[in-house]
Amino acid sequence: MNIGLIGLGKMGFNLALNLLDHHYKVVASDVNKEQVDKIEEHGASGAYTFQELIAKLEKPRVVWLMVPAGDITEDVITGVAPFLEQGDIIIDGGNSNYKDTLRRAAALNEKGIEFVDVGTSGGVDGARHGACIMAGGSKKALQLLEPVFKALTIENGYLGCGEVGSGHFLKMIHNGIEYGMMQAIAEGFDILEKSPFDYDYEEVARVWNHGSVIRSWLMELTQNAFSKDPKLEQIRGVMNSSGEGKWTVETALDLQTAAPIIALSLMMRYRSQEEDTFTGKVVAALRNEFGGHEVVKAES
Amino acid sequence: MNIGLIGLGKMGFNLALNLLDHHYKVVASDVNKEQVDKIEEHGASGAYTFQELIAKLEKPRVVWLMVPAGDITEDVITGVAPFLEQGDIIIDGGNSNYKDTLRRAAALNEKGIEFVDVGTSGGVDGARHGACIMAGGSKKALQLLEPVFKALTIENGYLGCGEVGSGHFLKMIHNGIEYGMMQAIAEGFDILEKSPFDYDYEEVARVWNHGSVIRSWLMELTQNAFSKDPKLEQIRGVMNSSGEGKWTVETALDLQTAAPIIALSLMMRYRSQEEDTFTGKVVAALRNEFGGHEVVKAES
Amino acid sequence: MNIGLIGLGKMGFNLALNLLDHHYKVVASDVNKEQVDKIEEHGASGAYTFQELIAKLEKPRVVWLMVPAGDITEDVITGVAPFLEQGDIIIDGGNSNYKDTLRRAAALNEKGIEFVDVGTSGGVDGARHGACIMAGGSKKALQLLEPVFKALTIENGYLGCGEVGSGHFLKMIHNGIEYGMMQAIAEGFDILEKSPFDYDYEEVARVWNHGSVIRSWLMELTQNAFSKDPKLEQIRGVMNSSGEGKWTVETALDLQTAAPIIALSLMMRYRSQEEDTFTGKVVAALRNEFGGHEVVKAES
Amino acid sequence: MNIGLIGLGKMGFNLALNLLDHHYKVVASDVNKEQVDKIEEHGASGAYTFQELIAKLEKPRVVWLMVPAGDITEDVITGVAPFLEQGDIIIDGGNSNYKDTLRRAAALNEKGIEFVDVGTSGGVDGARHGACIMAGGSKKALQLLEPVFKALTIENGYLGCGEVGSGHFLKMIHNGIEYGMMQAIAEGFDILEKSPFDYDYEEVARVWNHGSVIRSWLMELTQNAFSKDPKLEQIRGVMNSSGEGKWTVETALDLQTAAPIIALSLMMRYRSQEEDTFTGKVVAALRNEFGGHEVVKAES
Repeated sequence: MNIGLIGLGKMGFNLALNLLDHHYKVVASDVNKEQVDKIEEHGASGAYTFQELIAKLEKPRVVWLMVPAGDITEDVITGVAPFLEQGDIIIDGGNSNYKDTLRRAAALNEKGIEFVDVGTSGGVDGARHGACIMAGGSKKALQLLEPVFKALTIENGYLGCGEVGSGHFLKMIHNGIEYGMMQAIAEGFDILEKSPFDYDYEEVARVWNHGSVIRSWLMELTQNAFSKDPKLEQIRGVMNSSGEGKWTVETALDLQTAAPIIALSLMMRYRSQEEDTFTGKVVAALRNEFGGHEVVKAES
Repeated sequence: MNIGLIGLGKMGFNLALNLLDHHYKVVASDVNKEQVDKIEEHGASGAYTFQELIAKLEKPRVVWLMVPAGDITEDVITGVAPFLEQGDIIIDGGNSNYKDTLRRAAALNEKGIEFVDVGTSGGVDGARHGACIMAGGSKKALQLLEPVFKALTIENGYLGCGEVGSGHFLKMIHNGIEYGMMQAIAEGFDILEKSPFDYDYEEVARVWNHGSVIRSWLMELTQNAFSKDPKLEQIRGVMNSSGEGKWTVETALDLQTAAPIIALSLMMRYRSQEEDTFTGKVVAALRNEFGGHEVVKAES
Repeated sequence: MNIGLIGLGKMGFNLALNLLDHHYKVVASDVNKEQVDKIEEHGASGAYTFQELIAKLEKPRVVWLMVPAGDITEDVITGVAPFLEQGDIIIDGGNSNYKDTLRRAAALNEKGIEFVDVGTSGGVDGARHGACIMAGGSKKALQLLEPVFKALTIENGYLGCGEVGSGHFLKMIHNGIEYGMMQAIAEGFDILEKSPFDYDYEEVARVWNHGSVIRSWLMELTQNAFSKDPKLEQIRGVMNSSGEGKWTVETALDLQTAAPIIALSLMMRYRSQEEDTFTGKVVAALRNEFGGHEVVKAES
Repeated sequence: MNIGLIGLGKMGFNLALNLLDHHYKVVASDVNKEQVDKIEEHGASGAYTFQELIAKLEKPRVVWLMVPAGDITEDVITGVAPFLEQGDIIIDGGNSNYKDTLRRAAALNEKGIEFVDVGTSGGVDGARHGACIMAGGSKKALQLLEPVFKALTIENGYLGCGEVGSGHFLKMIHNGIEYGMMQAIAEGFDILEKSPFDYDYEEVARVWNHGSVIRSWLMELTQNAFSKDPKLEQIRGVMNSSGEGKWTVETALDLQTAAPIIALSLMMRYRSQEEDTFTGKVVAALRNEFGGHEVVKAES
């Protein structure tokens, strides 16, 4: 079996290297042709069009997408599907919304094409040396791909978690939990920063990683971050987000689940993206109206 | 009965005028002698020391404090108490923490001095033309003062709500609710401000004040605020706070009550007082660590 | 001008009476024929099919829907549209999602049919004696309908707030604020209920309605509720919801707005609908795992 | 150096065993004499009164308290202090509030007694085989005790984090973060439980522990918990708490820090301890008042 990989960004490129390490033949493609040339140097076979990529694949063909969720994923699936046949498999390894996954799977299944959704965690380094892979799809497809997925993960890092959609759903929830954990850690350090004590945050993260209840990979990363910039003076606290957290909250609402921590983690990110808020202005104006409390004037 | 009033700030001065309107004799004092002179012009009798103030009062003496909660209230009570006798009454009309009130009442009661805690709402204008008064104290003291309190309020604006402490407690909760209501209104307008529609906020507040479920005095004040500054461009969204919201949350915790809205209303105020947060920096740094997500550099 | 009214539920029936009071001719229809007969007794003309209803209307026809949002609204629009002509107007007076409104307006406009979205607040009583009406639509349509809307409201209770969609959007935000205000009030009384004092809640709501900062129609309703059941012992604290609060939160997320109070108000409603939670079980199990803390066994 | 240990509960007993493993001589005491007899079987020397315990210690004496925070800690310190001399050290290894610690340290320091506050994490098992120890105190005292603390921890599991109070403060924040992390994990599983997919939660926790961003000791414990009770059907979701989470929130408020996740994690615990809420009743009653929405009747 060889594997067609579309998308050679940070995650895709490392996944390709990981596949090559495990002696899989990789046919790789990317809109950026330099990335294709670069992966060829590592032993992959490059392809510059979907048609070329598909032509180089053994049947049943396996086309693994590592491209941004949304329009690009949609376009790539639309682009490759016409070249595929019954029994071929498309793997979506991106952070797609599980609702899109369900819709795409239904459409592809009608043509006999299998669709497998893979949530991948572990970051760039995980993609390279051992990711966490959560895959949803038909039993037949998962059975075929299991050796590939297991090769890419460290021991026990693969789960075939159910029907199509279940992989992206599980990855979404994973990210929702991640939002909450990160915000919890961050709030803790914020209180430390305002405390009367003078902590060495790198040391704090280190000690918490040795025997405490909150030891975790995120705390190791916290230690790393503080080792480079002890008070994080070089960066601003703007917290961006890329979709899964929002989907987790939307899904919680759809399922009528109280998930206050995940919801608030997301909303504090939105808050961090504004220097000032209209909410704040309204409250300040109201306090001035009823109590004559002074407002802070905007700089002219 | 004449009434000794200590504290002629925005609230106290208007309360004095309100008392004078209702033909009460007022003996008034303030650290700022100009305020004393000014209230004399309105018919009050001024006093420049506690001793002088007490000397001018009929027995049982009623000394009403309208001074800032905390140390100043403590100091004034300590200052006047030695001149008072069994049966005299101190009224604390400030926003004192009810725990302080319970402590002070216990100490004064030992000397036979009554202590009455009065929560006052309605803002500066309410103090002048009809406040909302919530009073706690012994039945005897409340009975004596009821005519005074009723005179100062519009119809039904007075409640003798129970034992000493219950007035300040009720005012504290009132303010906690106020925090939540204000934040709710403000969030709503924030979403409108980011919406694809182009609303006239003064008109929105106006229509909501005529027949809608959320019609309220706060919405009237919202209308006023927008009538002066249609997009609130002249002010910054810094939301200060003065204590009662924090006490409400602390009390909720002490009583093991889930009060997420009031707690978050308070915390969003704290958030608004910081231009950037350490919380945000930690999350941004972590996202960079695991996903290589870009951070926003601090300006040098 | 006569007005076709579809939907004679609690809101629609009262709206019909309100229209009749203001000397509008009403042609009314409902799936429940008894309601049609009943409104005829009040002077409306009944119609038992869409076709009959349309036939009885003067041109340009005005068809006002007061039916549940979602599928039923969709079905009614699909049902009446074929009988309408260029220049006719459909008013959706239900709590439709503004995204549905935008979609429906676009489709109807293609056929020359005007679509006006009306958010109505004030509850059942407001519909009867003076609602708060927020309407979106073309200038032409709003100009034609303004006298009707103004007749149904008390002074200043009508706002033509902008393009189509803006009415339902504004009503949605109104309800989001309402969620927050109600939760704020409720949390306040919850803390009172656990406090060491013994308050009379009806009296508390009453005094807060006379001069306090939080005086509002919701506080009046609070007073009413406590007047009937002083400790609310006859009901359970299950907080249902009907859609607009959820949409407000979803819209906040779409617009990347931090709206923690509205989000939490909604989530506490979801929480109230569960007797026990899986969240709680996981936390309890974890506490047991690391600390040996006792868990509460499920009843067998 | 020998060490006096007061308190042989789950944590204290295991700490004693851990000390004995590392060849420290332990003099141990507990109100429950059976525990004292039991630890003697493991090689410790038992003491049945404070006086006896102190008498058996070498100078400078080290008395380590592993007793519940609050009154009991206070009583034990009051009980042993009179027998101690200048240069002796009391270690408080319990979860005391850092404000109490500061107060106690100031009082003991006046008598020349050193006070060291030790936050311990890692649960019962950590106490036995390698805890995480965060200690605050004077440089002199920490220098003397460092070998002891290091012996009890696994590599890098000890941090002398600063002046007295800093150990308990850091442990408090640790627990605050722990609250947030646990709630985040739990909310994630709650959404999974309501999802359309049928996950094996033990497997989910397992895969998340192998290469994912949220791998952590808490996720390992989650895996353990699900391995014993796959759907947690045997327990109820009542989330108790023991103080540090509450103190973290109170401290956040004192320092004017927005810590919404930690605050909400705590409040959802309080919520879980009530079958029904007054908050919910008020909201339900209000919905009934303005919209005629049905309420759920209390069972009689």
